[in-house]
Parts: sequence; structure tokens; C-alpha cells
Amino acid sequence: MDFQSVLDEIYEQVKQSENRGTVASYIPELGKVDPSKFGIYLLDHDKKGYEAGDANERFSIQSISKVLALSQAFGLEGPDIWKRVDVEPSGDPFNFLSLLELEKGIPRNPLINAGALVICDILISHLKDPKQDFLNYVRSLANDDSIDYDEKVAQSEKKTGFRNVAAANLLKSFGNIHNDVSDVLDFYFYQCSLSMSCKQLANTFFFFANRGKCIRGHEFLNLSQIKRINAIMLSCGFYDEAGEFAFRVGLPGKSGVGGGIVAVHPEKYCIVTWAPGLNAKGNSAMGMQALEQFTSRTGLSIF
Amino acid sequence: MDFQSVLDEIYEQVKQSENRGTVASYIPELGKVDPSKFGIYLLDHDKKGYEAGDANERFSIQSISKVLALSQAFGLEGPDIWKRVDVEPSGDPFNFLSLLELEKGIPRNPLINAGALVICDILISHLKDPKQDFLNYVRSLANDDSIDYDEKVAQSEKKTGFRNVAAANLLKSFGNIHNDVSDVLDFYFYQCSLSMSCKQLANTFFFFANRGKCIRGHEFLNLSQIKRINAIMLSCGFYDEAGEFAFRVGLPGKSGVGGGIVAVHPEKYCIVTWAPGLNAKGNSAMGMQALEQFTSRTGLSIF
Amino acid sequence: MDFQSVLDEIYEQVKQSENRGTVASYIPELGKVDPSKFGIYLLDHDKKGYEAGDANERFSIQSISKVLALSQAFGLEGPDIWKRVDVEPSGDPFNFLSLLELEKGIPRNPLINAGALVICDILISHLKDPKQDFLNYVRSLANDDSIDYDEKVAQSEKKTGFRNVAAANLLKSFGNIHNDVSDVLDFYFYQCSLSMSCKQLANTFFFFANRGKCIRGHEFLNLSQIKRINAIMLSCGFYDEAGEFAFRVGLPGKSGVGGGIVAVHPEKYCIVTWAPGLNAKGNSAMGMQALEQFTSRTGLSIF
Amino acid sequence: MDFQSVLDEIYEQVKQSENRGTVASYIPELGKVDPSKFGIYLLDHDKKGYEAGDANERFSIQSISKVLALSQAFGLEGPDIWKRVDVEPSGDPFNFLSLLELEKGIPRNPLINAGALVICDILISHLKDPKQDFLNYVRSLANDDSIDYDEKVAQSEKKTGFRNVAAANLLKSFGNIHNDVSDVLDFYFYQCSLSMSCKQLANTFFFFANRGKCIRGHEFLNLSQIKRINAIMLSCGFYDEAGEFAFRVGLPGKSGVGGGIVAVHPEKYCIVTWAPGLNAKGNSAMGMQALEQFTSRTGLSIF
Repeated sequence: MDFQSVLDEIYEQVKQSENRGTVASYIPELGKVDPSKFGIYLLDHDKKGYEAGDANERFSIQSISKVLALSQAFGLEGPDIWKRVDVEPSGDPFNFLSLLELEKGIPRNPLINAGALVICDILISHLKDPKQDFLNYVRSLANDDSIDYDEKVAQSEKKTGFRNVAAANLLKSFGNIHNDVSDVLDFYFYQCSLSMSCKQLANTFFFFANRGKCIRGHEFLNLSQIKRINAIMLSCGFYDEAGEFAFRVGLPGKSGVGGGIVAVHPEKYCIVTWAPGLNAKGNSAMGMQALEQFTSRTGLSIF
Repeated sequence: MDFQSVLDEIYEQVKQSENRGTVASYIPELGKVDPSKFGIYLLDHDKKGYEAGDANERFSIQSISKVLALSQAFGLEGPDIWKRVDVEPSGDPFNFLSLLELEKGIPRNPLINAGALVICDILISHLKDPKQDFLNYVRSLANDDSIDYDEKVAQSEKKTGFRNVAAANLLKSFGNIHNDVSDVLDFYFYQCSLSMSCKQLANTFFFFANRGKCIRGHEFLNLSQIKRINAIMLSCGFYDEAGEFAFRVGLPGKSGVGGGIVAVHPEKYCIVTWAPGLNAKGNSAMGMQALEQFTSRTGLSIF
Repeated sequence: MDFQSVLDEIYEQVKQSENRGTVASYIPELGKVDPSKFGIYLLDHDKKGYEAGDANERFSIQSISKVLALSQAFGLEGPDIWKRVDVEPSGDPFNFLSLLELEKGIPRNPLINAGALVICDILISHLKDPKQDFLNYVRSLANDDSIDYDEKVAQSEKKTGFRNVAAANLLKSFGNIHNDVSDVLDFYFYQCSLSMSCKQLANTFFFFANRGKCIRGHEFLNLSQIKRINAIMLSCGFYDEAGEFAFRVGLPGKSGVGGGIVAVHPEKYCIVTWAPGLNAKGNSAMGMQALEQFTSRTGLSIF
Repeated sequence: MDFQSVLDEIYEQVKQSENRGTVASYIPELGKVDPSKFGIYLLDHDKKGYEAGDANERFSIQSISKVLALSQAFGLEGPDIWKRVDVEPSGDPFNFLSLLELEKGIPRNPLINAGALVICDILISHLKDPKQDFLNYVRSLANDDSIDYDEKVAQSEKKTGFRNVAAANLLKSFGNIHNDVSDVLDFYFYQCSLSMSCKQLANTFFFFANRGKCIRGHEFLNLSQIKRINAIMLSCGFYDEAGEFAFRVGLPGKSGVGGGIVAVHPEKYCIVTWAPGLNAKGNSAMGMQALEQFTSRTGLSIF
């Protein structure tokens, strides 16, 4: 299939869209991003890349990092990880903390904030230097040592992330945070601040489309583990718009408030979009359009 | 792949399982079923069938019928259907009616009871003789005129289905039932009482694995519509165990309290299991095991 | 204290209020009431009455009847009544049915609809001819045989009361309705349709301010029982505005969507207001103002 | 009435009770208290005191302090206080934070933890040296300079109060905490650590039974303000057992996890009990029994 011309057409068409969403401003640093940015990058199963627009510009990957932290933690902790975090969709935009109370401190899944905080806690228990070791893990996956945290974004979120502080303390009150709450939060804010381009993300997430083997061919997770994380991305990767994404795009994926979306088609390809404007549900407005068009035009969804 | 020997091995192994669940008893008629029943049927993309155990014995398909009603309603009503029912997982085992209140009478998805009641209401608005016309639709999909309702089961549920009566009246109070509540409930109880074998179900659901074309080659829905229903099955087909099913089995599917489970792998195959004992979440205990083994052994999941 | 001149002043002042609320229209018959109606009646501990405005005109007492049904059921069933209904405020305007689900069919208190339905069910189990026997009970309390149901209102609510049908069926599904759901609902709709004037209500409720002895001196409940119902009225008599009423008025009481409010000061007096316009929380707007002024001017609250 | 002999009888009888509850252990320091302690103190309207048992031994007043902080804040801030905290019962034992989310950061009432944190924030905005100024306020009310904080208890709760840290941060995320979260929490933990005897508490709370005038005759709040706080105590003073307390005891009051209960009968008396064992709802088991017996024997409830 001629992926390049498909990307070019989608890029031109979505670029004209009037439905561009709004740049996230609750993390002050993120509010400074140019809203007209738009990039797409596709890496096929033969490791051939295709790009359009700002595919090489770095942005804050935010919640997309949760999938990477989950994969590192799953590798280190094994199936015991599921004793501390469930794999069900949260299904509830209203009250992110209330389910946590009803379910006694077991977050619904590892891709909501509460679940990601538990994953951070698990990583801290395993790693000597969590921030550096996690960064090395991502660099190694991507085969790219230039990947780094964005200190300004991390500090900006640290000052305003009261809701995450609330979640971490509630988890601690249920005994589902083992380390110091402040260490967990610090690691979490850094993890979310990772700055990467569409291309770098596609290289990093390639192993989810390649049965666990990274772009250099090293096995990071086995097929069974990859299947599980892909299933979680499909069910839980888009907050309360997970069903909508499965329905419109039909791929496992994960979005971030920085405007990035990563999606994978097992054994076929990995695709990444970036456009900072978010829709009402907090997912990149133009990214959603681009991905829906992509699977519609190519017929390459998992359904 | 030698599907027959895979089915045989799984059948023998799961048959010995000590984790057999409990037969549903809240619908009195269902409580009379022999708990030792166990059948598997697989229909591959070339319409070749493989079976093990009680694959030709009929059972009450119950909630599996919701997918068939949804597909008929989607065909008749088109995308307007999504104005009256959402496509997000419900995510909540505790309070099936409360989300309905919070979200002003728009059910979370068409596969929970409240959503299925709205689908029944939509069908009643379109069909002259809803019960007969829906039955004809299913018979036509399966190419099998022997399929029928089980009057005893329908009457049994009618006498005890207070929770569904509650849901229908709550929907009516929000204006999301247009016809008489009692007509909607009557149709709903009949729809759920459909009696079919694993083989008949596989034949019927074949079109979800065949881009909308039924076993006789007639197109019932287009590819885009099929994709959407498959996505909904994956996200919402197993109540609050949807994530677990996606995670362990990795296929779109739907279960019923009669002990049946249908799952499809688009463009590959359709598989149906039946074992009346249910696990704590209300899904067939042995069916779940059989399907997990099947995708693990064959590697044929969508993830 | 010169109650008459206090009532006259309050009547004149509140009559000018611009904050008159909106007449309930969800029961069609209620929507036909003249919104300018306004009456006050006070019966002191010596059975001396004081009135202002439309104090002798009958209106639909609606939820005020729940207190009377509760008192009859408490007398017949004794303390076992609290096994089937709790005495805590519901505290939740959003989702009236969801608490019922969380708490497994035990309504929060007997003055919310779900609780009143359970009380109706208890009465049906005790009474030979529930509708007539309850009517006789109220007539006997008031010493007034002219009190009667309003058939039109009862029928009007019967046609539109889907939410109550939902609640009754949900209760039935939890086993907390013992009789036929339709009998319970029929009795409930009639009970709410009682048509009484401010004066008749004051005469009826006198026994709550008189240690259980009615206006003719007969003991209907003992002091301990009266204390309990007064406490329930204070905590739960005004839906999610119960705290506000306790706070602004400082008396046990009960409102109805017909615009009536009854309030009692134990061993001091019973006061009833009627003005059909309701505030946003569903309580009579002018009635609330009149009662707040009354306890503020006289200092006669329980706090 | 011979209060002394009533107290003596109740003391002897409740002392034998087998239903003694369990001492709170979630704040480690509180777990060290002797569970056999039991004291009662009554101060009548003529300032005459009556006592039984350990009425002069100091204990941690915990949540009882919330009423005192509320009264100081109400005096300083006036009615604007109700813009930041509501006056409705919370009605929900399950999910203390979820209502906060549904209601956008406005706590249900000032006597639940979230509400008390907002009150602390209001006091910090008004007071130069909040901890000292609040202590002086309490000493002045009680006419007793020996009252003080218990440093050990304050530190103990500080180390384990993750749930309160969660609540404060959630409030901050909604903009309903204006000062530093850590300052608010520090003040809150100190406030709760106040150590007082039954007698000291009765002297302090006397002004709620005396139209706002303290034991020395100084007016701290006006009658209207006192009425309002008494109403709030009745509706909200006992978490999800508020209705039960109104029902069984029939007085405005407030309990603390240290085992203390304060109750007032406006213009009649103030009564305080202390017994460290708590019932399932977190209120002093023997205190509840003693107070229920007191109002039953004397007939002196507000209902």
C-alpha cells in the first residue's frame, strides 16, 4: 500500500479542518505550544517510515508515557502487577476519585492517573535511580539517546497538579502506595514530561506492533505480555472516549494532553499523530480525525 | 491450522476444570439446565465448521441476542442510533441504573440492558410485527428457519424481570423510550429467549467476521458498520469483565447468562462456546477458559 | 404571643415577594392550579387556630401524605419497620435510584419516594382495604370526614409516574416490596392525591405537636414514636434542602409538590402554608419565606 | 429535675453494657487510650454542673473541634461562609470524596472533613497566628486557660492523615482552598488534637444552649447564628448516623473519634459524654447509649 500518498492526502485535508480543538492550559507550560502544529508519522512492519508535517518536532508526550511505564513495570514485576491495578475501563468522566473509594484503592486500570501512580510506585520499588533508569529504558526502546525529560514542564505540573497529589494520597490511605508519596509524585511528573517527536514515538512503540521486539530486534516483552498491553490500550487508552476511539479508529492506542496520539496495528504498523488542540474529551481533535481517516481509507483496523 | 485437534484438546482439558461456575438461577427456567453441558463450535473464513461436545444442542442465548438486535436496528435506523445510546463501556458493576440518571437517560452502550431496551424501542418503531420480523432477520442471517423463541423462558423472565421493568420505566421518564413500556419489555424478553446451538450461533455471527456478508453471501451491513459493532463488542461485550476478556482472550465477543459466548476474529473465524456455569462476573466460566486457551494456542487474537 | 398579627404581617409581606417559584407541571393536573394562591394556618397547643389568605382552600397535599402513611404504618408494624427503611438523609439530588442500588434496596428514609413505596407496601400487608382504611385514618386524625382523594390527580400521576414505577420495580427486585407492584403503585398515587386545606392539615398534624394525641384527645402514637417521626421530618422532610430548612426555619416539617408545607413545634404549635410556586429544589418558594419569617419573628424554633 | 441521680443511674447501667465498641486505631496515638474510661458531664441553663465517672479527665476531642472552628469562622466571615461550604447532610458513608467531585469542590457541610478543611482555610485568611488565635478563642469560651493542643496526637495524625491530604488537595484543585495546602493541613491536625475533659467541653459549648452567650455572659454569636449552627449539628453532626442520632437522642450534637460526644438542648442544658469505644459508624458506643437513655428518661429532647 502506498502509505506516503495516504498520509499526504490526510495531512492536507485535516490541516483544513475547522474542528481544531483547544490547547490544554491547566499545565501552564503546555499552554505555550503553537496550536497550528500538526505532524504524522507511520512506521510499517518492515521498519520503513513515512511522514507528513511536523513529524520531527518534539512535544510533551504526557499520558502516552503511561504505556511505557506500564511495560517496564510489567517486565519487572510480572503478573503480580494486576493485584494492585485492574484492567477494566473506568467509564466515568465525572468522578475520577470516587471509583477509587468504592473499589478500595485498586485503580480501574494502569492508564488512568491513579493507576499510573501505582505503576510509578512499583517502578520505584524495583529501580535504583527511577528517573534515570526509566529514561534509559525509553532510549533503549527507541534506540535514541537524545530523548529526555523537559524540566520546565515537570516543574510546571508539579506546582499545579493538586488532583494528582489528591489521588496519590488517597491511594496511600488504602495502602496501595508503598513508597513516599512525594517520591512517587516527583517520578510521575517527570515521566509525563518526556519530550519526543512523532518519529521517536513510533520507533519506541514499534515493539507493540512487533510481538515485543524493539526496532533493533531485542525482545523487551513476550507476545503474551504485548497482547495484554495492546488490549488495555484499546479498552482504556482514551479515558471516557475509549469506546469512541475503538469505534471510529479501531486500533489500540494512547493519547496525551500534549496533543499526541500513538496507535498500533499488531504485526502491521505503528502510527503517531501530533496536533495540540484537544476536543471536549481531552484527546487531540485533529489527531482523531487523521487516524479515523487512515483506517477508513486503508481498511487497516483490527475490526 | 488444524482447528479440529486444537478444539479437541481444549475440550478435553477444560472439561476437567474444577472452576466450573454456577448456573444462573434468577430466571427460574434457566436454573433447570444440566450444568455438565459443554460445547464448542468454530466456523472458519472458508465456512468450514469444527465442533466438540454439545455444539449442536440448543440453549437460551440471552444477552447474545443484543448484538443481533443492534445490527438490525443499525441497519434500519443508521447513525442516528447513536443519539439515543452511547458507545462507551459502562465500567460499573455496582449501580446499573445510576449512570443512567447521571447521564439523563442515555445508556452507556447498546449491550447493557438499558441500552438493549432502547434498541428494542427503535426496532418497534421500524417493524410491523417486531417479534416475528426480528426472528426472520435472525433466521435469514443463519440460513436456518428452525430457530425460534423459547416461550417458557420468555414467560419466566417476564414474571421476574423487575430490574428490567425498572430500567425501561426510568428510560421512559427521560423520554428515551418512544413506544409503550410494556411493548418494549415484551419484545425484549422474547428476544433474549432465542434458543440456538453453538453451530447456529456461529452461522449467524459469521457476517461479523466476513465484512458484513452472511453465510449465504448476502450483505447485511457494510464494512464500516461491521467494524463499529465489533469495536462495541470488544469494549462492552462482557459487562465489567470486558477489559478482562480483551486482555485474556483478545477478541470482540458477547456472552449471555445462558452460558453461551460468541467471539469473532475479523476475516479469520467465528467461535462459539456453551457451558452453563457462570463465574462471579456472570460470564461462562468454562467458556472463558476455552477461549483463552484457543487464542493462546493458535496465536489468533486481534492483539 | 399575638399569632394573628404575626401571620397577617407575614402574609402581606410575602404576598409581595418577587421570588414566587414555578408551579409543578410534571403531574399535568397540578399544572392547572392558580399560582397566586397563598394561605397560612396556625394551630396552637391550646387548639386555637389563626389563619391568613387561602387557608381554607383545598390543594393536593402530595408528599405531605408520606408522613401520615408513615405514622399509620409505624403504629401497625412497630419498630420492625426500620428493617425495611432507614432513617438517614438521602443527601443526593442527582441520582435517586443509585443509592437504592448501593444499599441493596433499603431506601434511605421513609420520606423519599422509594421509602414511601415501601411504607405503602407495609400498609397493604396490614390493611383489608388499604385506600379506604388509610383515608379513614386521616379523617379520624383530622376529625373531618370531608377529606378525600382527588381522582383526577391520582389518574394523572398514574399515567406519567414512570420514575415511581421504576423505583417500585427496583425495590421489588431486591425483595423489599412484598405485594404486587401495581397494587403498591396504585395505593401510592391515591395517597399522594389527598386534597386538603391548610386548616385540615394543621388539624391532622396536631398530634405531632401534642405528644401523639390528636385534636380530639385520642392517642394515635406514643411520645417515643412521635419523637422519632419528628426527628425524621427534620432530617429528611425537604429532600436535598432538608439542611437548608433546618437551618433557615428550624422546625420538623414536610413539603409537597402541590405547594404545601407542614411544620410542627413540639408542644407549641403546628403551622401550615400553601403557595403553589416551587423553588429550584422543589419546595414552595413563598412557603419557605413565610416559615423563615415566622420563626425569626417569634423566636419559636427548636434550635 | 434531679439531674444528678439520673446521671448516676445511667452511668451505672451503661457501665455494664456489653456493647462497648472498639477504640479508634487509625491515629496511632488514639489507640493507646484506656478503653474502660467513661465520663458524663451536664451543665444546666443555670450553669449548675452534674458529673459521673471520668468527667474531669482530658481526651482528644478530634472532630468536636470542628463546631468550634465553624463558630469562630462564622463570626469572622459572616454569611459569605456559605458560598464555600453547604449545609446539607452528606448522606454517604461510601465515597467521601466523590460528592466533592460531583459538586465541584463545595463540601456538603462544615462538619465533614472536607468542609472543616475549608473552614480552616477561612480562619487562616482571617487570623494572624491561626493556631494560637483559635486556641485563645476556645480558652475564652471555656473561661479556662489550661486547655491546650496535644502535640503527640497532632504529629501522629500528620504522619497518617493521607485521606485528609487527599481531600485538601482536591479542594485546592477546585480553587476552594486559598492558602497553602500544607498550612491548612497543619492547622487542621492541631485543631483536632485539642485535649479537653467532659466538663471543659460542657463549659465551652454552653453558649450554644444559651443564645450565644458564653459561661461568663459574653455574646460570641447572635441568636440567629446559634440557631444555624445548632441546626447544622443536628443534620450533620454524626456522619451517616446523623439521622439515627436525631432519631434516638433528639438533640443537636457532635461526636469525635476520641470517643467524646457533645449535645445541647437550647435554653435547657449542655451534656457531654466520653467513652473511647466506637460503634461501627465511628461514634462512641456507650456515649450514644447514655444520651439516648438521658433524653428518654427526662423527656428533654427537642422533638
